Amino acid sequence: MYYGNNQLRIEDLPEPSVSAGQVKIKVSRNGICGTDLHEYYDGPIFVPKAEPHPLTGKAMPLVLGHEFSGIVTAVGADVTDVREGDKVAVEPIYRCGDCRPCRTGYYNLCNCIGFHGLMADGGMAEYTVVQHNMVHKLPDSVSVEMGALVEPMPVAYHAAKLGSVNDQSRALVFGAGPIGLGLWFALRGMGLTEIDLVEPSVARRQAVEALGARTIDPTTVNVADLIAEKTNGNGVDAAYDAAGVPAAVASALDCIGEHRALVSVAVYDRPMPTPLLNLVLKERRIQGTICYTADDYRAVIDLMAKGHYNMTGWVETIPLEGIVTEGFEQLRAGRKMKILIDPSA
Amino acid sequence: MYYGNNQLRIEDLPEPSVSAGQVKIKVSRNGICGTDLHEYYDGPIFVPKAEPHPLTGKAMPLVLGHEFSGIVTAVGADVTDVREGDKVAVEPIYRCGDCRPCRTGYYNLCNCIGFHGLMADGGMAEYTVVQHNMVHKLPDSVSVEMGALVEPMPVAYHAAKLGSVNDQSRALVFGAGPIGLGLWFALRGMGLTEIDLVEPSVARRQAVEALGARTIDPTTVNVADLIAEKTNGNGVDAAYDAAGVPAAVASALDCIGEHRALVSVAVYDRPMPTPLLNLVLKERRIQGTICYTADDYRAVIDLMAKGHYNMTGWVETIPLEGIVTEGFEQLRAGRKMKILIDPSA
Repeated sequence: MYYGNNQLRIEDLPEPSVSAGQVKIKVSRNGICGTDLHEYYDGPIFVPKAEPHPLTGKAMPLVLGHEFSGIVTAVGADVTDVREGDKVAVEPIYRCGDCRPCRTGYYNLCNCIGFHGLMADGGMAEYTVVQHNMVHKLPDSVSVEMGALVEPMPVAYHAAKLGSVNDQSRALVFGAGPIGLGLWFALRGMGLTEIDLVEPSVARRQAVEALGARTIDPTTVNVADLIAEKTNGNGVDAAYDAAGVPAAVASALDCIGEHRALVSVAVYDRPMPTPLLNLVLKERRIQGTICYTADDYRAVIDLMAKGHYNMTGWVETIPLEGIVTEGFEQLRAGRKMKILIDPSA
Repeated sequence: MYYGNNQLRIEDLPEPSVSAGQVKIKVSRNGICGTDLHEYYDGPIFVPKAEPHPLTGKAMPLVLGHEFSGIVTAVGADVTDVREGDKVAVEPIYRCGDCRPCRTGYYNLCNCIGFHGLMADGGMAEYTVVQHNMVHKLPDSVSVEMGALVEPMPVAYHAAKLGSVNDQSRALVFGAGPIGLGLWFALRGMGLTEIDLVEPSVARRQAVEALGARTIDPTTVNVADLIAEKTNGNGVDAAYDAAGVPAAVASALDCIGEHRALVSVAVYDRPMPTPLLNLVLKERRIQGTICYTADDYRAVIDLMAKGHYNMTGWVETIPLEGIVTEGFEQLRAGRKMKILIDPSA
């Protein structure tokens, strides 16, 4: 239960029950997201302090956790698309269905968007209850650990698409955290073979290199010069900022070709000094991206079913009791890349 | 003749002659551009100091002037598309024809782009000689004064297109200088009726209002709040930054709807503090734009022939002798919007 800044308590709660249209899930794994760290160390940010969220009716205190997989243990009346025993991942977006973004299919931009695990009791618990349209069935070949990665991976997959790339494109990803690595998996899934990950941390470079990724160390190499040399001065076809720091934004804008995009998938805590003249001179663009829609979930689950995603060396599971010391603190210090909670351990 | 920072001299030069593929023009009017001011007060910026430009072979000193109209007085061998006596406007871009931008039709992004009047002797003279493929014939109904506006107006027309607008779109233009006003003409030419110009200067607001434009004074109104109210919270379909100041960039990003563009058509002298989080949260984009290609020239000349552009109240002609005191200084102080030079007066 999240009670605000630096206040997280493990409590016994009554087991939730389902109403019509809802699905109860026994949570198998729940990933810790950067957003959870922000809520714990700097929040509350997204979690409603007092005024309940208009779509969920919930405010603090609540159970965190929006990246999770589990097994369906009960379904409410009228739920026919999922049943008891199904292994599922959850798309945690509550949407109004009424605003222009919702009406035009972009409910990831809903004017009153809510998230399960931020505006409603989430997945860092033995049980949680969601709306049936949030549930995606997982094939047998996708493990519950992999299932807990389904939520962050569509963030990256959705971002990858907004770079307007094809299998012949050359891409450059700034930041080799879970989203940067997710971009690498997504771009590879789209057929790209020429992808470089720019990452200053030795440990992160080693982790993603072990998976087959090619990396650039921006502390020892001038990235723009290297890319100019590699591309005969044409620049890359898409760059992605999954780092969220001014140096990455500026460097990326030096590396992309004319009429190409820098896709921003970071959470910027303040306005970035941005060399907009670089946009002008080559008619480049910066494209923002956030979350995903169901299409991205389906695409990622399909790729996972084909064995396309690899958790080796960057994903670990811990029990709920360790969430702060073994989870938040390790992630914040950059000592771990991705940690999953097993709430039943 | 431009000799560098704050050094401009009126000199007698030999009348230039044409070689094969070239066209000699008796200049009727040449507009003073913001770029000319930058060269005079802060330059040399684009004008080559010593190393001759690879495409033109020219360096300082040279004759400024890249916005001009005139009458053809001679054509070189092999020139069949234009003849003596034709009234013309000039598209002042030298391009290599070889780089990727050139090969894909975007010679406005040529890797070694040159401009007549910045990298070659330009239109602030009685005569100038250009390549025949730079020449656009003007119909009888387009005056030589209007002809001198052809160059800046396609800059705005090209920018207008990059906003992905249609006749039902609502647009917001920051800055009501010549490019901002050119955006208004271009967007009107594309059928838009819902356009607001954001401009802090009273004189500029009055000048463009007299032409029929609708304006917003950002010093007395919160632009984002006003736009939210006007658009039922949806935001505008495109915003254009023709002001180039941080306040315009930040305000514009608050005003555009989801998946919409802020088109940057300003010359930014340094990195702007840019609220990139606003891009992310609504999947907005910032799109850079520069210059034009021949298509934009043709579109603008067609609209001019239909009487679509109006010079009343914002364009004045002066003789060459007045260029600094009656030209540069008035423009720099914001007392005039557009000044044309008549080099024969």
